[in-house]
Amino acid sequence: MKKQNPAFNLSRMTNKIAPSRRKFLKTALAGAGAAAAVPLSAKADDYITPSMTTPGKAFTPYGMPSGHEDVKRLLRPPGISPGTGGSLSPIESLEGMITPSGLHFERHHNGVPDIDIKAHKFLIHGLVDKPLEFTIAALDRYPRISRMHFVECGGNSAANAGSPTPPQVTAGGIHGLISCSEWTGVQLGMLLDEAGVKPEGKWILAESADAAGMSRSIPLQEAHEQGILVLYQNGERLRPEQGYPLRLLMPGWEGNLNVKWLHRIKVTASPTMTKDETSKYTQSLKDGKANQFNFIQPPKSVITRPSGMMTMNGPGYYEISGITWSGHGKIAKVEISFDGGSTWTAAEMPGPVFSKCVTRFRLPWEWDGKAVVVQSRATDEKGNVQPTRAAWKDRFSPAQFYQYNAIQAWQIGADNTVKNIYV
Amino acid sequence: MKKQNPAFNLSRMTNKIAPSRRKFLKTALAGAGAAAAVPLSAKADDYITPSMTTPGKAFTPYGMPSGHEDVKRLLRPPGISPGTGGSLSPIESLEGMITPSGLHFERHHNGVPDIDIKAHKFLIHGLVDKPLEFTIAALDRYPRISRMHFVECGGNSAANAGSPTPPQVTAGGIHGLISCSEWTGVQLGMLLDEAGVKPEGKWILAESADAAGMSRSIPLQEAHEQGILVLYQNGERLRPEQGYPLRLLMPGWEGNLNVKWLHRIKVTASPTMTKDETSKYTQSLKDGKANQFNFIQPPKSVITRPSGMMTMNGPGYYEISGITWSGHGKIAKVEISFDGGSTWTAAEMPGPVFSKCVTRFRLPWEWDGKAVVVQSRATDEKGNVQPTRAAWKDRFSPAQFYQYNAIQAWQIGADNTVKNIYV
Repeated sequence: MKKQNPAFNLSRMTNKIAPSRRKFLKTALAGAGAAAAVPLSAKADDYITPSMTTPGKAFTPYGMPSGHEDVKRLLRPPGISPGTGGSLSPIESLEGMITPSGLHFERHHNGVPDIDIKAHKFLIHGLVDKPLEFTIAALDRYPRISRMHFVECGGNSAANAGSPTPPQVTAGGIHGLISCSEWTGVQLGMLLDEAGVKPEGKWILAESADAAGMSRSIPLQEAHEQGILVLYQNGERLRPEQGYPLRLLMPGWEGNLNVKWLHRIKVTASPTMTKDETSKYTQSLKDGKANQFNFIQPPKSVITRPSGMMTMNGPGYYEISGITWSGHGKIAKVEISFDGGSTWTAAEMPGPVFSKCVTRFRLPWEWDGKAVVVQSRATDEKGNVQPTRAAWKDRFSPAQFYQYNAIQAWQIGADNTVKNIYV
Repeated sequence: MKKQNPAFNLSRMTNKIAPSRRKFLKTALAGAGAAAAVPLSAKADDYITPSMTTPGKAFTPYGMPSGHEDVKRLLRPPGISPGTGGSLSPIESLEGMITPSGLHFERHHNGVPDIDIKAHKFLIHGLVDKPLEFTIAALDRYPRISRMHFVECGGNSAANAGSPTPPQVTAGGIHGLISCSEWTGVQLGMLLDEAGVKPEGKWILAESADAAGMSRSIPLQEAHEQGILVLYQNGERLRPEQGYPLRLLMPGWEGNLNVKWLHRIKVTASPTMTKDETSKYTQSLKDGKANQFNFIQPPKSVITRPSGMMTMNGPGYYEISGITWSGHGKIAKVEISFDGGSTWTAAEMPGPVFSKCVTRFRLPWEWDGKAVVVQSRATDEKGNVQPTRAAWKDRFSPAQFYQYNAIQAWQIGADNTVKNIYV
């Protein structure tokens, strides 16, 4: 078989990073490959595994991961109540673009409410001609749309912003407040039209039915154009931790604007100035002022393999792989640097590349075993580029950590360690 | 707000089925809408739900659906052992294109083996220059690809093929041996190249490490070009029921060719004629002969909403919605008929439309409350069209049921019932 293997076309890479396909295969066999595949010794036709001699387990109504796996959300120490705080997606153990719903990050302000889908009501009121009340069964009758989008907490990656020394944890431990799902629901604009927004209605207040009454203000025009009332996540009903039975999705916008356990939207003339947009989720500037209503999550990328706390396997072939996203639209490119940011090489994004969605990037790499710093830098279709940590820090007060999107650098040591560093 | 709502653009529909957007909104408000939203009576600012007065649940390492949901796989009565048979995806309760991994259909020949990922070995042997043995850790070092593809059991929809009267069950009860995931793994062709296939190697045997030793023969060329050794499903490690820790994926090919719990591939000169391709998964013809090696799943579509066993809510607006797929490539169009198949109207496929992948279709519809038969018909990009049941039955012996892909018709009654019928 001499056929080209189309998806692994190393000729599309630069020669600097990637060897030719022929050279890669030779290297894989001689170097990394020798550590990977080994010549077969046993007589394979007689190779019977223990699992082939014992009938397996019966069928189950709802499946779970193998008991041999231990990939879990990273639970942070809780805050003022057991349900206040966050848990992070273990992004270093995940692949592709979809986050399995069981591992979607959590950020709750007072726990996960237990809501009966049959009893839940959703209200549209305030500056409307006709205040409306919907059951979920009523919402289920409207036309639906399905879209793949990320949700990222505004506080994601804060550990790198705030800690004077780089925290030595996993990629998920730093950046795991990002997840990506296929969301299905009803366009908010349709329901606002049904209620009939009065001319003086310029904002909405979206409120959660959780015990924190989490609520945010959103400009009416963007809510009407972009808002989705989500009923389904990755094919099934929303998970409790993501807002069951109803959440607002503002694709690409800061996480807590995507109000979970949504029970009312009030049309208002101006922002409501809730506690969640005054005491939190603002950006402290150097002059003592604060930016409020910073809606859109900026572009970011994280190399998840290799990443912090992993151990390299010695010199040889590696696939550098990670995730990238931007609240402004599609990712245009992700570049990788191996020389402290002097030169950059484009990674592959084999697709799909959706707007306001996690995109997987990959780059084949032959490691010579010497100490090296690996960084990734995302650029979105609007031209926004991930800044360096220094450039990011220069914009804000030392206390600011929301929407931190600086370049992540991993220090790979000759001793096979992978460490978080600031460059 | 007078803005157009771009994704719900009824002007793209034919006038015959869909009213104009203006008319729809009027109808929604006066008819179906009146049953949906109701005017608000309570003072909304004071509307406090019970969940707002009690702290919610704490964080969890791995999430599950709400306890208020009861969407489960449909377990068929088991066969000769508790792990022999199938369970079906409840497609009538799902949305979008992704099947949540917990609800992916199951088809096992002797249960779900319990395999330790650290101990599992995968062999390539037979007509190769260099027989190879891989651990999963070794496979993890190769370049990966991620793709969204369906897997459909060759026996899916058999109830409609075999039963002389239409079975009155849900859409999932008939057609639920279809699921769709984002799969990530290593291209088989790369590993076959590493082993070095001898010129006389023209087929492979792929064998499972389950207690049935489930195995199939696949032509080498297609296995090399299209085969993926899957390690991840919807972002996390493969689920046990889908082949943990390793399965073969032949996108678009009959389900059991996507061998789960894969432990060896043997390169052979000709097909091995295993029990799973001689006693089963062949197509019985009228002349007493059988077609063997029917690899590719033909195009199919199923309206999942409304569908069998559902109850309509009286006249008014409905969104007709369903799933469609073809093993030959992308779906080119799905058409809906309301008049027994005389005329057909194109449904919307808002996308994404991927090759060999489930695609969601939607069509707004105003039901007048009278008895009507609703059918969907898929055409793929190669021009393959779903046949009528009569045309399909005419090709085979009465005992044949594999790869049944005839048009599904639902009889909607004036009494709000939805029944499976043959047309």
